[in-house]
Amino acid sequence: MKTLIKNSHVLTMDAKRTEYPDGYVIIEDTRILEIGPYDQLLQSESSFDEVIDAHQTIAIPGMVNTHTHIGMIPFRSLGDDYPDRLRRFLFPLETACMTKELAYYSGKYAIAEMQLAGITTFADMYYFEDALAQATDEMKSRAILGETIVDFPSCDASTAHGGIEYAEKFIPKWLDHELITPAVAPHAPNTNDPEALKAAAALAEKYGVPMTMHVAEMDYEMKHFKELHNATPIEFLQSIGVLSPRFIAAHCIHLSAQDLQILKQEGVGVAHCIGANTKSAKGVARVKDMQEMSIPVGLGTDGPSSGNTLDLFTQMKLVANFHKTTLQDRTAFPASDIVAMATIEGAKVLNMSHEIGSLEIGKKADIVLVETKSVNMFPIFDPYAALVYAANASNVQDVFISGAAVIRDKELVHHDLTVLRSNLSSEMIPFSKKARELA
Amino acid sequence: MKTLIKNSHVLTMDAKRTEYPDGYVIIEDTRILEIGPYDQLLQSESSFDEVIDAHQTIAIPGMVNTHTHIGMIPFRSLGDDYPDRLRRFLFPLETACMTKELAYYSGKYAIAEMQLAGITTFADMYYFEDALAQATDEMKSRAILGETIVDFPSCDASTAHGGIEYAEKFIPKWLDHELITPAVAPHAPNTNDPEALKAAAALAEKYGVPMTMHVAEMDYEMKHFKELHNATPIEFLQSIGVLSPRFIAAHCIHLSAQDLQILKQEGVGVAHCIGANTKSAKGVARVKDMQEMSIPVGLGTDGPSSGNTLDLFTQMKLVANFHKTTLQDRTAFPASDIVAMATIEGAKVLNMSHEIGSLEIGKKADIVLVETKSVNMFPIFDPYAALVYAANASNVQDVFISGAAVIRDKELVHHDLTVLRSNLSSEMIPFSKKARELA
Ligand SMILES: [Zn+2]
Ligand SMILES: [Zn+2]
Repeated sequence: MKTLIKNSHVLTMDAKRTEYPDGYVIIEDTRILEIGPYDQLLQSESSFDEVIDAHQTIAIPGMVNTHTHIGMIPFRSLGDDYPDRLRRFLFPLETACMTKELAYYSGKYAIAEMQLAGITTFADMYYFEDALAQATDEMKSRAILGETIVDFPSCDASTAHGGIEYAEKFIPKWLDHELITPAVAPHAPNTNDPEALKAAAALAEKYGVPMTMHVAEMDYEMKHFKELHNATPIEFLQSIGVLSPRFIAAHCIHLSAQDLQILKQEGVGVAHCIGANTKSAKGVARVKDMQEMSIPVGLGTDGPSSGNTLDLFTQMKLVANFHKTTLQDRTAFPASDIVAMATIEGAKVLNMSHEIGSLEIGKKADIVLVETKSVNMFPIFDPYAALVYAANASNVQDVFISGAAVIRDKELVHHDLTVLRSNLSSEMIPFSKKARELA
Repeated sequence: MKTLIKNSHVLTMDAKRTEYPDGYVIIEDTRILEIGPYDQLLQSESSFDEVIDAHQTIAIPGMVNTHTHIGMIPFRSLGDDYPDRLRRFLFPLETACMTKELAYYSGKYAIAEMQLAGITTFADMYYFEDALAQATDEMKSRAILGETIVDFPSCDASTAHGGIEYAEKFIPKWLDHELITPAVAPHAPNTNDPEALKAAAALAEKYGVPMTMHVAEMDYEMKHFKELHNATPIEFLQSIGVLSPRFIAAHCIHLSAQDLQILKQEGVGVAHCIGANTKSAKGVARVKDMQEMSIPVGLGTDGPSSGNTLDLFTQMKLVANFHKTTLQDRTAFPASDIVAMATIEGAKVLNMSHEIGSLEIGKKADIVLVETKSVNMFPIFDPYAALVYAANASNVQDVFISGAAVIRDKELVHHDLTVLRSNLSSEMIPFSKKARELA
């Protein structure tokens, strides 16, 4: 199968940020065979199985969402402005109403939302990851799926740290999947005891899979480690030997100079969730400092109850405005660097940059066409600026994952959004009832 | 002409924030005749000229954009991350390439963008306001249109402060228009001499029209007044007697306690442009302090070169995240208050709240239906949260201004966006050429 995409303004996001204002990409099966300016295309158009005229589009690498919780669609718009949202809504509803089926239907819906927004790869942390892997497989998305481990009985484990046992079965089951990378996901340093964290790291090591965790996010988490260990969470995690290049740290809002050194030294990548961090008034992570030390930083939507949308356009705008303002420098975080965070830097965080994150010959054909016909996308003197400052998720027109179209003309190719929604809605009935009681 | 809108989740934004989860609105000619829960509708559906089944929508008052520059579409995505953008791009391009025709086509396009995003009323400040009034009239939008006054020759005036003379003709010409309120718009306190500011205020007084100005936005503006008058810009404006309830102050980023008192005392309303202010790293205005003193604060997109989109959904999200983070309080600026800023509070800033800003019997029928079919709009436990944290401009489905539909099913009713864009594009040729030279 050979497909030609032509007439797009191609942003490769390669190391030189090569652009082809009138560019073409050739997809052969799952990979990019050729890419360049259209006037250098040598092959006849009749030699392709499909030719896509992508005029009035910007082509970018599939976007990489480095941190989310796809099982949490049911929580969206619930208790956003409450001080005690976690304890008032999230924990009780997860305990009482989260099931394998609900997670599965939520997962499919969440993946649809991400694909419609141009996200082709995501790193998830939730319960029932086996059901979420099934959902991911059916939606044909690329993903890292991390089973949550936490020190209390959870919706998918009857004992504390039951996620370890779950992951022991889950990881080998999905290890050879073309698009899915199973993983372990201890919830946070302060919601797991050190033995569980070490067991999780050992499991990740054993199978050569990622380990992901919320880190340095909460004030009480910082306080906990200060009081108990006179350490930061990151110092503590290093001291018990669980950090490594396979570690993906979400948030990292509160970082000391020493923490930055540790992240660098251990090769940890960071999922920066600016939307969730600032909506909950937690603060703005030191991303510029991390970037200056070449610590990889990607973008994360966080879950739909924190984010609240599963798109990186919203995040890109927030990154620009928050970091420029925090640094008091309007030239900081230029648009092209932010598009890089949403693509190639995210791929580095997930240790996938050899395969995805940029449009280069030989890489997997994860490609997004963003249309520029809509009213907000004119004029375009700088396509990066248009993507960061003007575009929204609704401008995403076509999405390819490993060469296969999952979105064409703003619609899911293999699924019907109305059906995904009505399935989720039906499955949500007990959840919604309980949610209304708690509000 | 009598229209029934039924089956919408109606957020009236009245003083009690009345909601009708299954609500109806009756429009008679230009005004709202009735509003309430659908099960209390007494009239037969056959008695209406049109019945709109608005299932899967949220109905809100037409949104109010309290500060923009509709002539500036050509500048979008140009030099966003440059330190010297104003002097490198804006001033030279305005001097060399801004014409009456270009302003007119930009204006029509900008108004289309706002209508597609649910903005039914805007306050503009630019040059060639007579051409922009013609554009506004043709687009059937409600607007305050302020002719810019500045202390150097501009694209529409051959002498410094030529805008005063322009406004002298412009204001009476449009004074009796159904939807348009002409106004004067001195550019900023430091780009006008006191005599010009007083003349502008006298003109506004004479015709009973608004006066709008950028105030307390720039570091060098603050420094200028400190050095020259040992005063803040707001103290200075009060001292020369130009503040009044007809004054609309854009930005007000840098406010002393005394400035707050002055704004309150003089009855000034404030256009808060969080997107433009933070993208340019200028800072976050003291909105909570203003609200606590009952100083009206509405939202502004600022121009498309600063904003960069002319929609208030982007602004609402930024307001939430920036103010929560600045105040270190996740409960601050709850979603319903932010929707109020985008509607009724904006109307108060423009002194129009007796006519618009909420859905109440007798008010002008400026109504927006936001669809909740799209992937980002499910579930909805709280419609305000859905609007602020999840919606984007593309969710706007139908828009009515003074009872007349300007948007139906996400399309302009009386205009063709492709034509508006190609007209603007043609008119932009010399501008674009020069812009590329400067980059
Ligand atoms: Zn998270
Ligand atoms: Zn402005």
